[in-house]
Amino acid sequence: MNKPPVIPKYLQHIRVVLCRPSHPANIGAAARAMKTMGLTRLYLVAPQLIATPMTPNPPQYNPQQSFSLPEESYTLASGAVDVLEQATIVNTLPEALHDTVISCALTSRRRELSVPLQTPRQGVSEILATAKSCQECAIVFGNERFGLSIEESMNCNRLITINGNPDYFSLNLAQAVQVLTYEIFSQIDFSMEHLQEKTNMVTHKEIDGLMGHFADVMQKVGFFERRNSERLLRRLRRLFDRNGVEREEIDILRGFLKTVTYRINKN
Amino acid sequence: MNKPPVIPKYLQHIRVVLCRPSHPANIGAAARAMKTMGLTRLYLVAPQLIATPMTPNPPQYNPQQSFSLPEESYTLASGAVDVLEQATIVNTLPEALHDTVISCALTSRRRELSVPLQTPRQGVSEILATAKSCQECAIVFGNERFGLSIEESMNCNRLITINGNPDYFSLNLAQAVQVLTYEIFSQIDFSMEHLQEKTNMVTHKEIDGLMGHFADVMQKVGFFERRNSERLLRRLRRLFDRNGVEREEIDILRGFLKTVTYRINKN
Repeated sequence: MNKPPVIPKYLQHIRVVLCRPSHPANIGAAARAMKTMGLTRLYLVAPQLIATPMTPNPPQYNPQQSFSLPEESYTLASGAVDVLEQATIVNTLPEALHDTVISCALTSRRRELSVPLQTPRQGVSEILATAKSCQECAIVFGNERFGLSIEESMNCNRLITINGNPDYFSLNLAQAVQVLTYEIFSQIDFSMEHLQEKTNMVTHKEIDGLMGHFADVMQKVGFFERRNSERLLRRLRRLFDRNGVEREEIDILRGFLKTVTYRINKN
Repeated sequence: MNKPPVIPKYLQHIRVVLCRPSHPANIGAAARAMKTMGLTRLYLVAPQLIATPMTPNPPQYNPQQSFSLPEESYTLASGAVDVLEQATIVNTLPEALHDTVISCALTSRRRELSVPLQTPRQGVSEILATAKSCQECAIVFGNERFGLSIEESMNCNRLITINGNPDYFSLNLAQAVQVLTYEIFSQIDFSMEHLQEKTNMVTHKEIDGLMGHFADVMQKVGFFERRNSERLLRRLRRLFDRNGVEREEIDILRGFLKTVTYRINKN
């Protein structure tokens, strides 16, 4: 069994930015979704519920003060707590983006702006190309209720929207993060070889053997009377050629054909 | 503004099968995920928590009895309650699959079977091709904790796995449904034209005009002294050609250039 493939290092150039998220649970869920898809760099812009020793009202984040998110974030993060602990917290979106070359704002389909709109498939393709050349990229998600403000969107140089049912579209923040991070991982060249045995491919000669065997037995049992044997065999062969019959399957079929022959000869 | 595009009718040939789900909340969430991505056909195989008037223990589903799922399913389904109400309930997986030509079992990466393993991208490509020719397809999800049994998987003729971080993979049933339904919709040819204005593309001549204007002003201000003007202008032009400069942007630049000229002439 081969070793499992390694997550490409260039994924570290992709950051997920949650801009003014309201619900601690979503921050935790986002961390989990990210880690599941090999991403580790989380940025939080003015998360509404930073608890500090000073005040219950969300203050300006002071990098000198230690911070901690509400307990719920850590609980929901489950095994992805490390992503939370390493998260970068900033007060404004430009701070989260200033070393990035591409920043993709996630927008709902209902927003109609004149900046070109990409699907996640399109946007992520560009993101990965950029990350592979070691340049920083960001995917930016807005507040659960209000999304990104127009001004926040303008900080980004790309717009991505997740397409769906125009009459009913229910995707919350954590789900949107899940979809984007899934799309990212799906575009990585990630071999699945470690998960399955290489199937034993059979040779042309082995299929010849099988077809020859079919021909014999079909002849013997009278299947070819008033039929075009050549055409039938050619047509049947396509099944085995097209689907890549396996050696074990040939063995089963030929074993069966052999038994039929034996049975007929007995009569 | 164009009309929003219509969900293709052939999506009705794709069913989502939840096999022995334990948590009513997941059934509701799955319904929401489905409807968000234009799918409406939900099959439930022996959902553990069917409430019937007869018994609190999950009984054999009796089609003659009216059934209802636990309240939580309907609550979580939110605006997708219609999907629940139209769901088909059966006792066994073969019943859910017997008119399908393709059935894709969702499996975790940890399961190593010799049936070829597809990514969602690969599996969905085949599903859509099949649905487009009006043949029935199913995507089958197993129990939240135990997944599908080996026997259940064998009822399916395809295996799909969602790739991710080999060291940490946390995707629950509802999220897996979300990912697969997203993948389905993402492969539909769904125009986004209704969401944005067609940008006004500018003509070659208009860019000529802009470059000519730059040339004049750059010459006037002495920018070309000891520089290769032709090369610089050609190089700058690539910015406008490559990114498709818009008329409004040309107007701004040329207005600026005009002002520079005016200012210089004043001196």
